[in-house]
Amino acid sequence: MRATLMYGAGDVRVEDVPDPKIQRPTDAVVRVLRSCVCGSDLWPYGSLPVTEQGQRMGHEFLGVVEDTGAEVSGLKRGDLVVAPFVWSDNTCDFCAEGLQTSCRHGGTWGREGIDGGQGEAVRVPQAQGTLVKLPVAEDSALLPSLLTLSDVFCTGHHCAVTAGVGPRTTVTVVGDGAVGLSAVLAAKRLGAERIILMGRHKGRTDLGRDFGATDVVAERGEEGIERVRELTGGDGTHTVLECVGTLPALHMSVGAVRAGGTISRVGAPQYPEVPLGFPEFMRNLTLTGGVAPARAYIEELLPDVLEGRIEPGRVFDRTVGLDDIPDGYRAMADREALKVMVRS
Amino acid sequence: MRATLMYGAGDVRVEDVPDPKIQRPTDAVVRVLRSCVCGSDLWPYGSLPVTEQGQRMGHEFLGVVEDTGAEVSGLKRGDLVVAPFVWSDNTCDFCAEGLQTSCRHGGTWGREGIDGGQGEAVRVPQAQGTLVKLPVAEDSALLPSLLTLSDVFCTGHHCAVTAGVGPRTTVTVVGDGAVGLSAVLAAKRLGAERIILMGRHKGRTDLGRDFGATDVVAERGEEGIERVRELTGGDGTHTVLECVGTLPALHMSVGAVRAGGTISRVGAPQYPEVPLGFPEFMRNLTLTGGVAPARAYIEELLPDVLEGRIEPGRVFDRTVGLDDIPDGYRAMADREALKVMVRS
Repeated sequence: MRATLMYGAGDVRVEDVPDPKIQRPTDAVVRVLRSCVCGSDLWPYGSLPVTEQGQRMGHEFLGVVEDTGAEVSGLKRGDLVVAPFVWSDNTCDFCAEGLQTSCRHGGTWGREGIDGGQGEAVRVPQAQGTLVKLPVAEDSALLPSLLTLSDVFCTGHHCAVTAGVGPRTTVTVVGDGAVGLSAVLAAKRLGAERIILMGRHKGRTDLGRDFGATDVVAERGEEGIERVRELTGGDGTHTVLECVGTLPALHMSVGAVRAGGTISRVGAPQYPEVPLGFPEFMRNLTLTGGVAPARAYIEELLPDVLEGRIEPGRVFDRTVGLDDIPDGYRAMADREALKVMVRS
Repeated sequence: MRATLMYGAGDVRVEDVPDPKIQRPTDAVVRVLRSCVCGSDLWPYGSLPVTEQGQRMGHEFLGVVEDTGAEVSGLKRGDLVVAPFVWSDNTCDFCAEGLQTSCRHGGTWGREGIDGGQGEAVRVPQAQGTLVKLPVAEDSALLPSLLTLSDVFCTGHHCAVTAGVGPRTTVTVVGDGAVGLSAVLAAKRLGAERIILMGRHKGRTDLGRDFGATDVVAERGEEGIERVRELTGGDGTHTVLECVGTLPALHMSVGAVRAGGTISRVGAPQYPEVPLGFPEFMRNLTLTGGVAPARAYIEELLPDVLEGRIEPGRVFDRTVGLDDIPDGYRAMADREALKVMVRS
């Protein structure tokens, strides 16, 4: 089959790889219908050292079950399913607590003999725990929104949930990428009435307004902090959803949050340390968030997508075929595209 | 009257200062019965630059109301009261949320013309919001435990509450100082069944066991982390209560906490940054805590003290008179005393 490999920064290739087959009785094989490029794929795209063997790519996909191992129940050939961006048994103590990203028998797509999502098919370990059935047809117009349950919308939701967003909390979202916009939508869904979106790309912040942002702050750094404080009587917001992962974004978050408030981060940290010293201690700030256990949220979010109450799939503004994935990476890296969907 | 001033590192003096008088209609004057030396007083005791005018000291006290301003209701001459370690109006939006440390009209003892607690009397601003009446006599044997509601026990309680300690959470307490031991007692009171106390001073950890610690880990650093992990099947505890404030204590906390868990810090941070980068993001760790809004907790904790269900006053292992306060500082700095109470 065809699949995507990265051989170094900026070097993405679609190549022939072995067809996936059931290897363990807990496996399934899924033919991929849709996958996508993640903002987190852009970190290696910018910095991966050259590698001879290449790195399989993609961790967000939905598709059709082709085959199942002997111990997989509840799934059969022909089922349409979505995969969260890590696989997990969904039965261990961490999974039972809703922390499938720390599953005792889980792991990561594209590593150690596991396929990536950006290809024609995937062998899914722990298939029964990992995959969630979707009651739609292969040609459903809902596929883009359903695909966001694999990662990006669940990540925005995790950010809002861990921050404690609700009807009485004011919210600042740092970052107008696909995760930031998903966080806006998630905060709105959880009842937030005041959502300040920090971002400077009008096309993106316009979508953010559609998703529920009440204010847009284009300024950055101290100016951006000042602007959020002006909008909130000098105090900042109860919660800040940090959806970038850089130190400047984190500094803005610390500046924009209200005393007693919470910063939740879901942008993969590109920093080793967090600026939360004595002054932040005196303000009783909380830092939370982390890699999102998407699996924990899919069933809860699914009805809102199926019934059209939310359309998180609007973050996709470009669709490419499998062979055009390299150009999809380029378009996202160049900020031509917000988020690229792949039709396998 | 006599009061305590610090003129530089190691230089504590008890001197004559002006008697406090009502200055604003919201003031009260309280004659101090008991005060104490705080672990946080030891930071300036170790490092304060030499100052000509001296710094008034003490932020934990209980005493008897001597006089009240015209706008103070609910308090009268003769009432025995405890003061939390910051003063606050107890009516602003922050106070209403239980964050009296961020009160819009609050402040700190010993600063800007406000007396410190280590003296014969104190002018209390925002007296009606700040002071809490204690239904005991001046010679009550409960005074030491009641005095801990001013700071140290409420600080341990804040640590446990913000960490989310409850019957199903395992707990590590980092630090066997008075705050750490208070955190043990608070965690026990909140229902924690497994409480691992990290400390190496046997007299202190023995009191920790009396307060509810089920395990004591004397090792530090990587060894200490390893020991906590051994005690918890390799995982660490759901919560870590960081009661020291140094970077090594924070490193131990990060190492000892379980994936998905929470570190709460109440030791005043002696570091500008927190080591929570990518690996901790992948483990979904939360950092919370901060300076404790003691005022928010006093009414809730008071019945347990009055009825003898908890004895947080056992952290006091030495009592001095006002003129011996300098030796009290020395004894705490030299670790001769765990916590020093002052009888005014």
